[in-house]
Amino acid sequence: MLSLQSESRQRWLHQVDENLADILIDHAHCEKKAAACAMNLIMAYVDHPELVDELVTIVNEELDHFQQVLALLDKRNIKFGRQQAGGYGRQLNDLVRKFEPFRAIDRFLVASLIEARSCERFALLRDHVADKELAEFYGSLFESEARHHTTYVRMAKVFGSEEQVKERLEELSALEAEIVYRGDALPRMHS
Amino acid sequence: MLSLQSESRQRWLHQVDENLADILIDHAHCEKKAAACAMNLIMAYVDHPELVDELVTIVNEELDHFQQVLALLDKRNIKFGRQQAGGYGRQLNDLVRKFEPFRAIDRFLVASLIEARSCERFALLRDHVADKELAEFYGSLFESEARHHTTYVRMAKVFGSEEQVKERLEELSALEAEIVYRGDALPRMHS
Repeated sequence: MLSLQSESRQRWLHQVDENLADILIDHAHCEKKAAACAMNLIMAYVDHPELVDELVTIVNEELDHFQQVLALLDKRNIKFGRQQAGGYGRQLNDLVRKFEPFRAIDRFLVASLIEARSCERFALLRDHVADKELAEFYGSLFESEARHHTTYVRMAKVFGSEEQVKERLEELSALEAEIVYRGDALPRMHS
Repeated sequence: MLSLQSESRQRWLHQVDENLADILIDHAHCEKKAAACAMNLIMAYVDHPELVDELVTIVNEELDHFQQVLALLDKRNIKFGRQQAGGYGRQLNDLVRKFEPFRAIDRFLVASLIEARSCERFALLRDHVADKELAEFYGSLFESEARHHTTYVRMAKVFGSEEQVKERLEELSALEAEIVYRGDALPRMHS
């Protein structure tokens, strides 16, 4: 359902066990970046006002999650601040084609894949972390991230045919699976 | 109260009478840019999580106004889309100093002045336009823009002393008044 072509490796759960604070801080950054991504899509595609309402809802929800993660960090005395980003988002964004309408299709599909991977990782965290409140929190985020995934795939179809979007989603999700397989030495939400 | 050092000239109300549609389209862009501005401040000053909640509220409110303006445009069969920006925002942003903490002070104060000028313009529109629904709409926006102005001035004081912020606000508002006095040949919300 989530268009992912790989499952996360045990390696990531080791990173979680060793560096939970780093991953939580990265999670806050991820929510902030997800809000900014939806906002950038509103700005880039103002000629499609029919997309605005759903994108605004995504911005609002991601900012709400951002605030929730900040509150969780605060409660655990983990200081939020700048952090070196992992390579996941950059590597995915490098796959976006340069010219419209392909650029639009790719931007929405990359956003959809990031939501899908977050969804998978949140479910893993829900089942893995000992901290009950944290486990519940990740369970509660699962549904909205899955919904955002579906919304972004549907929005991509404003810019290309059903067939074009399906094919490109398969290509991109194969590449996304490779990026995740290679992993990242920095412990991050998508490492 | 709003730190403005000039009133808008009659010239602007002529632009409104001649080009109301252009100004409404620009207003939608302004709300979108105001949301993006608050979002960028969240991103730039993540080391100040105490600012996040109020900035998130501003993002949400500006996006809500953006949607309201789009609905008003739609109802009046005015097509929303790209539009050449006026020079107001760019000229103000050019005044922002390059190095921190002065950069932060200036970014918050410039945001505060844009809100203040919007506030003044909304009140003029409320009293000037014949379209009753539009007049009411501009009346309803007045309060939140005034509040945003005050919030941004207060936030600037996180990065400098009361005195520093007060002096710089006077300098910037004098420059803002000059920019407005010169005006802009393009009919825009801040022309």
